[in-house]
Amino acid sequence: MRYTERVLSDLNGLELIPTQIIHVHLALLGYAQGVAAAVELESQARQDTGMTPEEWMASNEPRTEPIQTAGSYPILSALFDQEGFGLELDLFEFGLARMLDGVESLIEQSGG
Amino acid sequence: MRYTERVLSDLNGLELIPTQIIHVHLALLGYAQGVAAAVELESQARQDTGMTPEEWMASNEPRTEPIQTAGSYPILSALFDQEGFGLELDLFEFGLARMLDGVESLIEQSGG
Repeated sequence: MRYTERVLSDLNGLELIPTQIIHVHLALLGYAQGVAAAVELESQARQDTGMTPEEWMASNEPRTEPIQTAGSYPILSALFDQEGFGLELDLFEFGLARMLDGVESLIEQSGG
Repeated sequence: MRYTERVLSDLNGLELIPTQIIHVHLALLGYAQGVAAAVELESQARQDTGMTPEEWMASNEPRTEPIQTAGSYPILSALFDQEGFGLELDLFEFGLARMLDGVESLIEQSGG
Protein backbone atom coordinates (compact mmCIF):
# COMPACT_ATOMS: atom_id res chain seq x y z
CA MET A 1 0.00 0.00 0.00
CA ARG A 2 2.87 2.38 0.73
CA TYR A 3 4.29 1.60 -2.69
CA THR A 4 0.88 2.17 -4.29
CA GLU A 5 0.44 5.50 -2.51
CA ARG A 6 3.90 6.62 -3.63
CA VAL A 7 3.23 5.71 -7.28
CA LEU A 8 -0.19 7.35 -7.19
CA SER A 9 1.16 10.55 -5.64
CA ASP A 10 3.82 10.75 -8.36
CA LEU A 11 1.13 10.30 -11.00
CA ASN A 12 -1.24 12.76 -9.36
CA GLY A 13 -1.30 16.27 -10.81
CA LEU A 14 -0.16 15.15 -14.26
CA GLU A 15 -3.54 15.92 -15.85
CA LEU A 16 -4.58 12.27 -15.86
CA ILE A 17 -8.07 11.34 -14.72
CA PRO A 18 -8.30 9.07 -11.61
CA THR A 19 -9.14 5.98 -13.66
CA GLN A 20 -6.07 6.55 -15.82
CA ILE A 21 -3.88 6.99 -12.72
CA ILE A 22 -4.95 3.67 -11.22
CA HIS A 23 -4.63 1.96 -14.61
CA VAL A 24 -1.07 3.22 -15.10
CA HIS A 25 -0.19 1.87 -11.66
CA LEU A 26 -1.80 -1.52 -12.30
CA ALA A 27 -0.28 -1.85 -15.78
CA LEU A 28 3.23 -1.16 -14.42
CA LEU A 29 2.65 -3.64 -11.60
CA GLY A 30 1.35 -6.26 -14.04
CA TYR A 31 4.36 -5.78 -16.28
CA ALA A 32 6.84 -6.05 -13.39
CA GLN A 33 5.16 -9.21 -12.06
CA GLY A 34 5.10 -10.78 -15.53
CA VAL A 35 8.81 -10.30 -16.11
CA ALA A 36 9.61 -11.37 -12.54
CA ALA A 37 7.61 -14.58 -13.02
CA ALA A 38 9.49 -15.37 -16.25
CA VAL A 39 12.86 -14.81 -14.53
CA GLU A 40 11.71 -17.00 -11.65
CA LEU A 41 10.70 -19.81 -14.03
CA GLU A 42 14.07 -19.65 -15.76
CA SER A 43 15.92 -19.70 -12.46
CA GLN A 44 13.80 -22.66 -11.33
CA ALA A 45 14.55 -24.53 -14.57
CA ARG A 46 18.25 -23.81 -14.14
CA GLN A 47 18.13 -25.24 -10.62
CA ASP A 48 16.12 -28.30 -11.69
CA THR A 49 18.32 -29.16 -14.67
CA GLY A 50 21.66 -27.91 -13.32
CA MET A 51 22.29 -26.39 -16.77
CA THR A 52 23.15 -22.85 -17.76
CA PRO A 53 20.93 -21.36 -20.51
CA GLU A 54 23.77 -21.99 -23.01
CA GLU A 55 24.06 -25.64 -21.98
CA TRP A 56 20.31 -26.06 -22.26
CA MET A 57 20.28 -24.56 -25.76
CA ALA A 58 23.18 -26.81 -26.77
CA SER A 59 21.48 -29.94 -25.39
CA ASN A 60 18.37 -29.10 -27.44
CA GLU A 61 20.23 -28.56 -30.69
CA PRO A 62 19.18 -31.94 -32.19
CA ARG A 63 15.59 -30.74 -31.79
CA THR A 64 16.04 -27.07 -32.71
CA GLU A 65 18.48 -27.50 -35.61
CA PRO A 66 15.92 -29.06 -38.03
CA ILE A 67 13.40 -26.32 -37.16
CA GLN A 68 16.08 -23.71 -37.85
CA THR A 69 17.10 -25.19 -41.20
CA ALA A 70 13.56 -26.01 -42.41
CA GLY A 71 12.95 -22.29 -42.94
CA SER A 72 9.51 -22.14 -41.34
CA TYR A 73 10.63 -19.39 -38.96
CA PRO A 74 12.83 -17.16 -41.11
CA ILE A 75 12.91 -14.07 -38.88
CA LEU A 76 13.50 -16.03 -35.68
CA SER A 77 16.29 -18.02 -37.35
CA ALA A 78 17.90 -14.88 -38.76
CA LEU A 79 17.91 -13.30 -35.30
CA PHE A 80 19.54 -16.33 -33.71
CA ASP A 81 22.07 -16.61 -36.54
CA GLN A 82 23.38 -13.09 -35.94
CA GLU A 83 26.91 -13.01 -34.64
CA GLY A 84 26.95 -11.71 -31.08
CA PHE A 85 23.22 -11.94 -30.60
CA GLY A 86 22.37 -11.82 -26.93
CA LEU A 87 20.07 -10.31 -24.39
CA GLU A 88 22.76 -7.93 -23.20
CA LEU A 89 20.24 -5.12 -22.81
CA ASP A 90 18.33 -5.50 -19.58
CA LEU A 91 14.89 -6.75 -20.62
CA PHE A 92 13.11 -5.43 -17.58
CA GLU A 93 14.47 -1.92 -18.04
CA PHE A 94 13.79 -2.01 -21.75
CA GLY A 95 10.09 -2.83 -21.36
CA LEU A 96 9.72 -0.45 -18.45
CA ALA A 97 11.21 2.36 -20.53
CA ARG A 98 8.75 1.65 -23.37
CA MET A 99 5.78 1.62 -21.01
CA LEU A 100 6.86 4.84 -19.32
CA ASP A 101 7.30 6.47 -22.75
CA GLY A 102 3.74 5.39 -23.52
CA VAL A 103 2.51 6.94 -20.27
CA GLU A 104 4.36 10.13 -21.22
CA SER A 105 2.49 10.21 -24.54
CA LEU A 106 -0.79 9.80 -22.67
CA ILE A 107 0.04 12.70 -20.33
CA GLU A 108 1.00 14.90 -23.27
CA GLN A 109 -2.30 14.08 -25.00
CA SER A 110 -4.27 14.81 -21.83
CA GLY A 111 -2.55 18.13 -21.32
CA GLY A 112 -2.79 19.18 -24.97
CA MET B 1 7.05 -20.28 -31.89
CA ARG B 2 4.52 -19.47 -34.61
CA TYR B 3 3.30 -16.57 -32.49
CA THR B 4 6.88 -15.40 -31.95
CA GLU B 5 7.65 -15.55 -35.66
CA ARG B 6 4.52 -13.56 -36.44
CA VAL B 7 5.36 -10.84 -33.90
CA LEU B 8 8.97 -10.69 -35.07
CA SER B 9 7.99 -10.44 -38.73
CA ASP B 10 5.64 -7.56 -37.92
CA LEU B 11 8.47 -5.81 -36.05
CA ASN B 12 11.04 -6.53 -38.75
CA GLY B 13 11.73 -3.69 -41.18
CA LEU B 14 10.75 -0.97 -38.70
CA GLU B 15 14.34 0.28 -38.34
CA LEU B 16 14.79 -1.49 -35.02
CA ILE B 17 17.99 -3.44 -34.38
CA PRO B 18 17.60 -7.22 -33.76
CA THR B 19 18.14 -6.89 -30.02
CA GLN B 20 15.38 -4.28 -29.83
CA ILE B 21 13.03 -6.49 -31.84
CA ILE B 22 13.45 -9.44 -29.49
CA HIS B 23 13.16 -7.17 -26.46
CA VAL B 24 9.90 -5.65 -27.69
CA HIS B 25 8.52 -9.16 -28.18
CA LEU B 26 9.64 -10.34 -24.72
CA ALA B 27 8.39 -7.18 -22.98
CA LEU B 28 4.93 -7.55 -24.55
CA LEU B 29 4.86 -11.23 -23.61
CA GLY B 30 5.96 -10.44 -20.04
CA TYR B 31 3.28 -7.79 -19.72
CA ALA B 32 0.54 -10.10 -21.04
CA GLN B 33 1.59 -12.92 -18.70
CA GLY B 34 1.73 -10.57 -15.71
CA VAL B 35 -1.80 -9.28 -16.21
CA ALA B 36 -3.08 -12.79 -16.98
CA ALA B 37 -1.53 -14.08 -13.73
CA ALA B 38 -3.22 -11.30 -11.74
CA VAL B 39 -6.60 -12.06 -13.32
CA GLU B 40 -6.06 -15.76 -12.60
CA LEU B 41 -5.26 -15.04 -8.92
CA GLU B 42 -8.40 -12.94 -8.58
CA SER B 43 -10.52 -15.60 -10.21
CA GLN B 44 -8.97 -18.23 -7.90
CA ALA B 45 -9.67 -16.06 -4.85
CA ARG B 46 -13.24 -15.58 -6.00
CA GLN B 47 -13.70 -19.33 -6.34
CA ASP B 48 -12.05 -20.04 -2.95
CA THR B 49 -14.07 -17.44 -1.03
CA GLY B 50 -17.29 -17.59 -3.05
CA MET B 51 -17.38 -13.79 -2.87
CA THR B 52 -17.62 -11.19 -5.62
CA PRO B 53 -14.96 -8.46 -5.48
CA GLU B 54 -17.58 -6.09 -4.04
CA GLU B 55 -18.52 -8.57 -1.29
CA TRP B 56 -14.84 -9.08 -0.48
CA MET B 57 -14.25 -5.33 -0.21
CA ALA B 58 -17.34 -4.99 2.00
CA SER B 59 -16.24 -7.86 4.27
CA ASN B 60 -12.87 -6.15 4.74
CA GLU B 61 -14.32 -2.76 5.60
CA PRO B 62 -13.63 -3.10 9.37
CA ARG B 63 -9.98 -3.45 8.44
CA THR B 64 -9.79 -0.95 5.57
CA GLU B 65 -11.98 1.78 7.07
CA PRO B 66 -9.45 2.82 9.79
CA ILE B 67 -6.66 2.91 7.19
CA GLN B 68 -8.84 5.06 4.96
CA THR B 69 -9.75 7.53 7.73
CA ALA B 70 -6.25 7.68 9.31
CA GLY B 71 -5.08 9.72 6.35
CA SER B 72 -1.81 7.86 5.75
CA TYR B 73 -2.73 7.15 2.15
CA PRO B 74 -4.37 10.36 0.97
CA ILE B 75 -4.21 9.78 -2.78
CA LEU B 76 -5.39 6.19 -2.58
CA SER B 77 -8.26 7.20 -0.29
CA ALA B 78 -9.24 10.09 -2.55
CA LEU B 79 -9.35 7.75 -5.56
CA PHE B 80 -11.57 5.26 -3.76
CA ASP B 81 -13.82 8.02 -2.44
CA GLN B 82 -14.63 9.25 -5.94
CA GLU B 83 -18.22 8.72 -6.97
CA GLY B 84 -18.41 6.13 -9.71
CA PHE B 85 -14.83 5.01 -9.39
CA GLY B 86 -14.32 1.72 -11.10
CA LEU B 87 -12.07 -0.22 -13.39
CA GLU B 88 -14.48 0.21 -16.27
CA LEU B 89 -11.64 0.69 -18.74
CA ASP B 90 -10.13 -2.62 -19.71
CA LEU B 91 -6.84 -2.77 -17.81
CA PHE B 92 -5.17 -5.14 -20.21
CA GLU B 93 -5.93 -2.99 -23.23
CA PHE B 94 -4.94 0.16 -21.39
CA GLY B 95 -1.44 -1.10 -20.50
CA LEU B 96 -0.99 -2.68 -23.91
CA ALA B 97 -1.84 0.63 -25.58
CA ARG B 98 0.73 2.45 -23.42
CA MET B 99 3.44 -0.09 -24.20
CA LEU B 100 2.70 0.00 -27.93
CA ASP B 101 2.83 3.82 -27.83
CA GLY B 102 6.25 3.49 -26.20
CA VAL B 103 7.39 1.12 -28.94
CA GLU B 104 6.13 3.63 -31.51
CA SER B 105 8.29 6.34 -29.88
CA LEU B 106 11.29 4.02 -30.07
CA ILE B 107 10.69 3.35 -33.77
CA GLU B 108 10.35 7.08 -34.46
CA GLN B 109 13.63 7.75 -32.64
CA SER B 110 15.39 4.96 -34.54
CA GLY B 111 14.16 6.24 -37.89
CA GLY B 112 14.91 9.91 -37.15
